[in-house]
Amino acid sequence: MKKVIIDMDGVMADVYPQLIEFEKRDSGIEVEPDAMTGKPEMDIFPNGKKHVNEVGFFRTLPVMEGSQKAIEYLNSKYELYIVSAGMEFPNSLREKYDWLAEHFPFITWEQIVLCGSKKVVSGDVMIDDYPKNLDHFSGQRLIFTQPHNELIENETYKRVNSWEEIMEIL
Amino acid sequence: MKKVIIDMDGVMADVYPQLIEFEKRDSGIEVEPDAMTGKPEMDIFPNGKKHVNEVGFFRTLPVMEGSQKAIEYLNSKYELYIVSAGMEFPNSLREKYDWLAEHFPFITWEQIVLCGSKKVVSGDVMIDDYPKNLDHFSGQRLIFTQPHNELIENETYKRVNSWEEIMEIL
Repeated sequence: MKKVIIDMDGVMADVYPQLIEFEKRDSGIEVEPDAMTGKPEMDIFPNGKKHVNEVGFFRTLPVMEGSQKAIEYLNSKYELYIVSAGMEFPNSLREKYDWLAEHFPFITWEQIVLCGSKKVVSGDVMIDDYPKNLDHFSGQRLIFTQPHNELIENETYKRVNSWEEIMEIL
Repeated sequence: MKKVIIDMDGVMADVYPQLIEFEKRDSGIEVEPDAMTGKPEMDIFPNGKKHVNEVGFFRTLPVMEGSQKAIEYLNSKYELYIVSAGMEFPNSLREKYDWLAEHFPFITWEQIVLCGSKKVVSGDVMIDDYPKNLDHFSGQRLIFTQPHNELIENETYKRVNSWEEIMEIL
């Protein structure tokens, strides 16, 4: 059975709406969608670094549109693993576990991997929004469109813009 | 550079002395070394399951003899990853991170992986005390002797009885 590796932030969890909301709340700055294209998240949100390090940030992230239905389907068809690079934020470890238990209760603890680097992760398909994760992967690479990666053109990735598009491929 | 994958419990952290100590404290039962050979840990400690689920269990584990010096040396020679199947015990996630920071401060967050199954982990060498982890690994397999695995004979593993022996091989 094919092993499918799915990233959390920017793929299952929708990070931008919360960064936008917290930035407005704390500094009054309204970050416009056009300003986000092609830029690292931490460059466009003046308080972004502070926010992702706060207790609770990863626990309250909204669910990416269409991801629950799609992942439940993929989970019945493939050997699925959720692989998230949460180790940079030690507060996020338990929060990510609890977030998955709430929003994706069909995912078991055996299927969860929280890591620093994804260089030791192998499988047949990887869905991720970051080139740094996809570039070390030997299987099929799907890049999930997020503002920071919109300008990247790389023929070793297949670009997917939604979970609907993923469902058409997998 | 070779990727070396090192397990925590039973390899870097010495689990048995603490299981023995907590069992004696709680039930008065003194588990003898001879009774442990070849049996799953949870079969020989009546309160073992309760203890590993307690807050703090993984944070207070003693360090395996010789592991600090050996791993510091291996860390300078190889691309090292610490891969621990802690996801079954969500309390352990932050505890394992803090335990590593205290006892192995030269290990960075990029090198830590906390997972459920190790089926998606790849590399060149794996050091682990559990066949279920080694069996899915495509590289060189070193089984670290612990009472539960002492009777296992499997020619696809190389048995190592101490960190000194590992240093002679790697």
